[in-house]
Amino acid sequence: MNFEGQHLLAIGDLTKEDLLKVIEVAGEIDKDMEKYKSLLNGKIVSTLFFEPSTRTRMSFQASMERMGGSIIGFSDVSTSSLQKGESLPDTIKIISGYCDVIVMRHPEAGSVAKAAEDSSVPVINAGDGPNEHPTQTILDLYTIMKEKGTLEGLKVGFVGDLRFGRTVHSLAMALTHFNPEFYFISPPSLAMPEKYLQELIKKGIKYRQEEDLLKVSKELDVLYVTRIQKERFVSPEEYAKVKGIYKLDKSLAQHIKEDAKILHPLPRVDEMNPELDELPQSIYFQQAHNGIPVRMALLGLVLGKLK
Amino acid sequence: MNFEGQHLLAIGDLTKEDLLKVIEVAGEIDKDMEKYKSLLNGKIVSTLFFEPSTRTRMSFQASMERMGGSIIGFSDVSTSSLQKGESLPDTIKIISGYCDVIVMRHPEAGSVAKAAEDSSVPVINAGDGPNEHPTQTILDLYTIMKEKGTLEGLKVGFVGDLRFGRTVHSLAMALTHFNPEFYFISPPSLAMPEKYLQELIKKGIKYRQEEDLLKVSKELDVLYVTRIQKERFVSPEEYAKVKGIYKLDKSLAQHIKEDAKILHPLPRVDEMNPELDELPQSIYFQQAHNGIPVRMALLGLVLGKLK
Amino acid sequence: MNFEGQHLLAIGDLTKEDLLKVIEVAGEIDKDMEKYKSLLNGKIVSTLFFEPSTRTRMSFQASMERMGGSIIGFSDVSTSSLQKGESLPDTIKIISGYCDVIVMRHPEAGSVAKAAEDSSVPVINAGDGPNEHPTQTILDLYTIMKEKGTLEGLKVGFVGDLRFGRTVHSLAMALTHFNPEFYFISPPSLAMPEKYLQELIKKGIKYRQEEDLLKVSKELDVLYVTRIQKERFVSPEEYAKVKGIYKLDKSLAQHIKEDAKILHPLPRVDEMNPELDELPQSIYFQQAHNGIPVRMALLGLVLGKLK
Repeated sequence: MNFEGQHLLAIGDLTKEDLLKVIEVAGEIDKDMEKYKSLLNGKIVSTLFFEPSTRTRMSFQASMERMGGSIIGFSDVSTSSLQKGESLPDTIKIISGYCDVIVMRHPEAGSVAKAAEDSSVPVINAGDGPNEHPTQTILDLYTIMKEKGTLEGLKVGFVGDLRFGRTVHSLAMALTHFNPEFYFISPPSLAMPEKYLQELIKKGIKYRQEEDLLKVSKELDVLYVTRIQKERFVSPEEYAKVKGIYKLDKSLAQHIKEDAKILHPLPRVDEMNPELDELPQSIYFQQAHNGIPVRMALLGLVLGKLK
Repeated sequence: MNFEGQHLLAIGDLTKEDLLKVIEVAGEIDKDMEKYKSLLNGKIVSTLFFEPSTRTRMSFQASMERMGGSIIGFSDVSTSSLQKGESLPDTIKIISGYCDVIVMRHPEAGSVAKAAEDSSVPVINAGDGPNEHPTQTILDLYTIMKEKGTLEGLKVGFVGDLRFGRTVHSLAMALTHFNPEFYFISPPSLAMPEKYLQELIKKGIKYRQEEDLLKVSKELDVLYVTRIQKERFVSPEEYAKVKGIYKLDKSLAQHIKEDAKILHPLPRVDEMNPELDELPQSIYFQQAHNGIPVRMALLGLVLGKLK
Repeated sequence: MNFEGQHLLAIGDLTKEDLLKVIEVAGEIDKDMEKYKSLLNGKIVSTLFFEPSTRTRMSFQASMERMGGSIIGFSDVSTSSLQKGESLPDTIKIISGYCDVIVMRHPEAGSVAKAAEDSSVPVINAGDGPNEHPTQTILDLYTIMKEKGTLEGLKVGFVGDLRFGRTVHSLAMALTHFNPEFYFISPPSLAMPEKYLQELIKKGIKYRQEEDLLKVSKELDVLYVTRIQKERFVSPEEYAKVKGIYKLDKSLAQHIKEDAKILHPLPRVDEMNPELDELPQSIYFQQAHNGIPVRMALLGLVLGKLK
């Protein structure tokens, strides 16, 4: 698609070609960021964070600023006008008249897509609760492409909370364009939801479900680890039961390929021993930094300043 | 007056010529905003919001950024140094040394004018409680001028909370420069305060007070609807008594002129059915967006970069 | 040292030559700030304020913006990702990949130095609790140099809370490079800590301890007044006992030299009567404003854009 003027609401709205386009543009930017420092002079992004998220917010803001653009917004709903009882449609109608693009995070699934209906400028979904966070998925793809040289035919393992893990669902679905083989590693209570498995079957994608990481770890080109998110659990007890199970440490080095890559959407809590950072396979901090060229690419594309 | 270096504290400080000057400059900007994108490079506005107001804050910030200027400030007094017991004069003396212009909102009437006394840079009042919010009034005037082609001799109806409605008081007083005819439509408990009516009598301005909007609606060139602001009431009971009375809906279409214009300072709560948005007469979202060229004009003028 | 790429964590890390270098560069900037307005285009500072500090935060932000640079960050830990349980090292590793320099304030002594270990970009300490706030000390030195024409051989009095006063400790130590004579004026319970006195003895610096300011005030070239910080006391009772003791007022004029200079790091609470502001010797607001050229100099130096 032509990205100019388009919303980015769900990863599933992008075709394989769209994904490769963003990755290509991000790669160009990554080579020489300095070149783009005035591209968005005079342009304004609104970062509307109805739920705090320092990293995502700062990543989008830095991406805008690296291209000379400016920022308005809020990082906390308690200082927003919604306190006075204004409806979300009204807020969006007004704010979209102040800026050129909106980046929005909201705790409620579907809220960002609804907001997009009332916006006169492109809206980028920066996370709507348990639902979508498409720029995270694109930066995951970009990271895999950059580190492995290809997205095609990879053996990708997902470990941790596969039931609630939004990033896992989105990345798995996006990777189906690229003929992957999946390994879903989790306790049964946090297994990959049936609807995604059905989708894989429909598409003829091979997958395997495992409880023991070490049984399959040697196979993997990519190991995608996820946090068990306290926020998604109904009670602290439910959370406590599962949180420590897949704690990875340095001994993992003996059980993975030399050129495997370990990714994590971060933040992590205690699913990884920090000593894991020393492994050459651990690239989750680079992954986080890849958010900058990817979001620069997206902002430039929807604003029609990059092709 | 020459705006350069001047404070903008109260709408009454501006002459008819001043108002027309700002409107003229805003009109120029509105035609080609892009032209101004580097005008304020290196200039800094401090947005000091001692009371949250997302829309007003973002509108000022966007206006500054559209001209290449930068922003410092706070949107919430809880993260300000005043917590450490510093006096407002000290805060203003220090901060005015960091920036080129201050935009300030404060819950207390008179506080912004007091702050201006200690500032070494121009101060723009972005609302001091029930008192003044002059840029709102100028954008209201700008909207009427843009939509009606003139400010002279218009029949203007105000409906809703005319007693506490700061925007109503300011706009009515500002319009007295332009030979208007007023219709004040409200329940008796929310009627226009006597002191403004006396002022109108003194100036020879015709006005009529009504409880029933439909009795006069056909006459109106402009209908200015206001929110009944919960914050201004002493108790929730007092608020509940009056809030629903003047709820407007689509049926209003049959009772107003085709070329009438419906304005509202927003946010609205339940004084309007959203279906009213469909009326071609409803221009309150454009009105909100007009805040950008108007505030750009003001910032450029007080900074001496626009003439 | 060559400042490019260096952290600025503690005032003691800077040699006499380093201090004079920053002061010299700040002086250049002070003469014509406009000249630097595009120097940091495309550069980003992260202002990470784990503890609110409006003035310091806005001063750093304005300094960055005066040179065309941009800002990301937070002013309040409650909207930061640390709420999700992320460790400080992880936060710093990620955020340092988004920006070119970090300015950090944190309530815990040593936390900023620790953060610097995990940062891929220079970190400037904007205050780590009772420990260090080096840019305050440099702006104090800059102010003295600017107002007295030299830093060498001055008689400097410190009055107020000398026990907990971080700014006093740092400035006294920094001044030891310049052959000063010190007067420490405080009640015994708030006296200069022994370890600093030992250091002075070791360096052969003359000092005198006094309870009564007026006994020595006529001698002083510089009088550095400090706030008695409520936050540093264990109980409100402890605070109440000492707070009002050294309240200065206009009558001080008769007891100090005509060309003496009164400094204060601000904010002040009730240690000074505001009438003191009228004295020509009172230069604490200029002192605060000197934070801008000093911080511009430091940002430009660590980013390698000033030499």
